Amino acid sequence: MAYNDQHYPSRILEDAVEAISSLPGVGKRSALRLALHLLKQPAENVHHFTESVNRLRDEVRYCRVCRMISDDEECSICSDRSRNRGQICVVESVRDVMSIENTGQYHGLYHVLGGIISPINGIGPSDLTIRELTERIKALPDPSEAEVILALSGDVEGETTAFYIYRQIVPSGVRISSLARGLGFGDDLEYADSLTLGRSIVNRQEFRP
Amino acid sequence: MAYNDQHYPSRILEDAVEAISSLPGVGKRSALRLALHLLKQPAENVHHFTESVNRLRDEVRYCRVCRMISDDEECSICSDRSRNRGQICVVESVRDVMSIENTGQYHGLYHVLGGIISPINGIGPSDLTIRELTERIKALPDPSEAEVILALSGDVEGETTAFYIYRQIVPSGVRISSLARGLGFGDDLEYADSLTLGRSIVNRQEFRP
Repeated sequence: MAYNDQHYPSRILEDAVEAISSLPGVGKRSALRLALHLLKQPAENVHHFTESVNRLRDEVRYCRVCRMISDDEECSICSDRSRNRGQICVVESVRDVMSIENTGQYHGLYHVLGGIISPINGIGPSDLTIRELTERIKALPDPSEAEVILALSGDVEGETTAFYIYRQIVPSGVRISSLARGLGFGDDLEYADSLTLGRSIVNRQEFRP
Repeated sequence: MAYNDQHYPSRILEDAVEAISSLPGVGKRSALRLALHLLKQPAENVHHFTESVNRLRDEVRYCRVCRMISDDEECSICSDRSRNRGQICVVESVRDVMSIENTGQYHGLYHVLGGIISPINGIGPSDLTIRELTERIKALPDPSEAEVILALSGDVEGETTAFYIYRQIVPSGVRISSLARGLGFGDDLEYADSLTLGRSIVNRQEFRP
């Protein structure tokens, strides 16, 4: 009997390896390593692991306002009355919210699109929460006093999505901005790509020492 | 609110990330990535995943003869009457059995130690299935006709374990062998470590073209 990809000493082990290797970035070899690791753990640890994953899938909700992950109907950011309710930062994903929150530099609200327009992956505007965004903007007391920050990736898909959203919301009169692009702090000129460097020169800022 | 290592938008997400990052080789960042991936999957896929892992932990058994992973009381190798029952290949782990089976070059039985003697990790001979091995050998119809192959790693712990087992089983009169050591097939002399190259010269084999 040869244990190649199709042969395992146990059907149950094989099923587990199959399931674990369905995770992104986990190949059959790593999955086998993880499965054999789990086999050696106390049963209660493994059960705690699987229960946490089940609860994640079954109980996590999305904020009805901004679509951020939340334990409640409204997320902790949207329900925080000390935040600037006239700023909406539009991001692709939950992770982007976490990254921006980590900077500690932003105190407005968010809007999670749940993806990016990508014809190649079959994702169009209607698959994202763009309609919900336009409705949020319409519901603002005075859109012209508000700001929408398009915090999307600088690649083609990000630019396309930003442009699409821009056209949808520009009639509302809301102020629209996007993230500053340029050299990263601490970046070495020598290693900067020429597109970024070029834009950094064109969009140069006043020197404020 | 800052989402550093300790701050998540959801308690449930945080618990899941914590649980996933307890897997070996999975850091907090990867765990978050995996958690957000699982959130996007259909619920039945996630439940299938967790059920497979639970079944692995709760239902997998170990062969009562060789301690290999098995769905039954006796594993498919031990219960295969066509295999050479006078050969017992002693290995550290389940994975080693799978590796050797994969070669298709061995047709005897196995004995899985379940680890290696490692004082630094607090693993002594009594934590392994060495007593079970000596009893298997004693139960052989004629030990002097049988062979025990010590297929352990070539590091200090492997050598220590092999030597310990050797002393335990040598009184039984069983033939004891170990894996051939030398250059790997296709290895370039230039890049071989000198210990391996030195042993390859000392233990040189008759040239059989």
